Amino acid sequence: MALRGGLPTESGFVGVEGVRLVEEALRSGCRIQAVLFSESGQRHHERLAPLVDRPEMAFPTLRTTDRLFEGLADTEHPQGIAALVKPRETSFDDLVNSAGSGCAPLLVVLAGVQDPGNVGTILRTAAAFGATGAATAASGVSGTASPYSPKALRASAGAALHLPILAGMSLPILLTQFKIAGIRTLASSVRTPEEGGQLLLAPWQVDWCEPIALLVGNEGAGLPEETERSADARIHIPMASGVESLNAAAAAAVVFYEAARQRSSQR
Amino acid sequence: MALRGGLPTESGFVGVEGVRLVEEALRSGCRIQAVLFSESGQRHHERLAPLVDRPEMAFPTLRTTDRLFEGLADTEHPQGIAALVKPRETSFDDLVNSAGSGCAPLLVVLAGVQDPGNVGTILRTAAAFGATGAATAASGVSGTASPYSPKALRASAGAALHLPILAGMSLPILLTQFKIAGIRTLASSVRTPEEGGQLLLAPWQVDWCEPIALLVGNEGAGLPEETERSADARIHIPMASGVESLNAAAAAAVVFYEAARQRSSQR
Repeated sequence: MALRGGLPTESGFVGVEGVRLVEEALRSGCRIQAVLFSESGQRHHERLAPLVDRPEMAFPTLRTTDRLFEGLADTEHPQGIAALVKPRETSFDDLVNSAGSGCAPLLVVLAGVQDPGNVGTILRTAAAFGATGAATAASGVSGTASPYSPKALRASAGAALHLPILAGMSLPILLTQFKIAGIRTLASSVRTPEEGGQLLLAPWQVDWCEPIALLVGNEGAGLPEETERSADARIHIPMASGVESLNAAAAAAVVFYEAARQRSSQR
Repeated sequence: MALRGGLPTESGFVGVEGVRLVEEALRSGCRIQAVLFSESGQRHHERLAPLVDRPEMAFPTLRTTDRLFEGLADTEHPQGIAALVKPRETSFDDLVNSAGSGCAPLLVVLAGVQDPGNVGTILRTAAAFGATGAATAASGVSGTASPYSPKALRASAGAALHLPILAGMSLPILLTQFKIAGIRTLASSVRTPEEGGQLLLAPWQVDWCEPIALLVGNEGAGLPEETERSADARIHIPMASGVESLNAAAAAAVVFYEAARQRSSQR
């Protein structure tokens, strides 16, 4: 059982660590291979017992010494509790139907977001404002950090386990699939209105009650020019001149807030 | 000349460091006591010359050795350029009239925001979305970090020098002054709707075209209960259940975005 690195094992399981995340994993409905307590982590057993000890939770609960646990753990001061979890497998159809009946899908596509903390924070923010699913893709030369790395999982506060995520997609294929499925693609743009002749919308000029996939690019460079061009529209948060753009997480918060605002007034 | 610490000297000057911030300081219209170049910082002189060498900029330009500069500098890899700047002195009346004619003031009041990086980021975000002024106050047991500390100045990207700021105010006096001046006070609340019987509004339920002061509290604890009660209303960003709140900077981005959206559609 390797908790470090956050890459799925061959069987597709990822390690999650800490009371809060293990609790989220147990609640998520994802398959659990095992839960591991160290000697001192045993004190958390009571809090988790209602989740762990149910008969349908047919996985072994393992014990280990503190020293062995510290050797496995990714964090510096491990809480002595971990689980091996299988993230839900999501197909493109799952993603499109993730919103449930009577509700249009609202998807976030991370393309080239390299910092795992940013990946996690954006997923958490998107989920908080009602996003129904996510996808991660490589973009140009830059890949997107795995949503299942320890740092991304922590920053997502478990949202990476709750939200349907299509991970490691090819961006051109994904964009084509969205087009066929009638999902409008919006490129979150760091460029100024002057650049490029394409439609550049403020978040409030978008009808967020439609089926939408929002593309979020690399922290520094944004989305590649050709990706922005192949999207249905660019969106840009209008700000006073001379001010640098918001960081990736704050920009995502603003855009998903606008979606939540419009969807809430429609209900 | 002490750049460290960021507390104003007895004469009220603060040190700013780095090409970008010195440039902002020279552009801000604030009084400059001196500009200091180290030997290697001299290479930035050309970029700043149009600003430094104007006849109305009647301050001395000092030279120093790299070693002496490093001893004064607050950053680890100093760029070799610094300035002593007098932040604009702002009265309460300045703050109320900061919006200019035909525009209602939109103020941010930081009460108990302890991290200087958060203070700077919130000021930068507020300025980016059209805030017209700011105030800082102690709140309960926790003070607000100085907007003029090196870390806050850097995080604000110069906004702390451009925006009128009333620093180190008494919160009860400030709230009373707002009431008298007809400025609506909104408490940014981390509490859930169930707590407290006071009006709790989503950002979109507020009329941001009115004169408004938004109170932002401590990163962890928020505003003290009695401050929230004495405000005209509480505002809370609605999010899916089970999700932790946004961090202070992202929450400020969302709220000021809403103000900018409404004010832009009114124009």
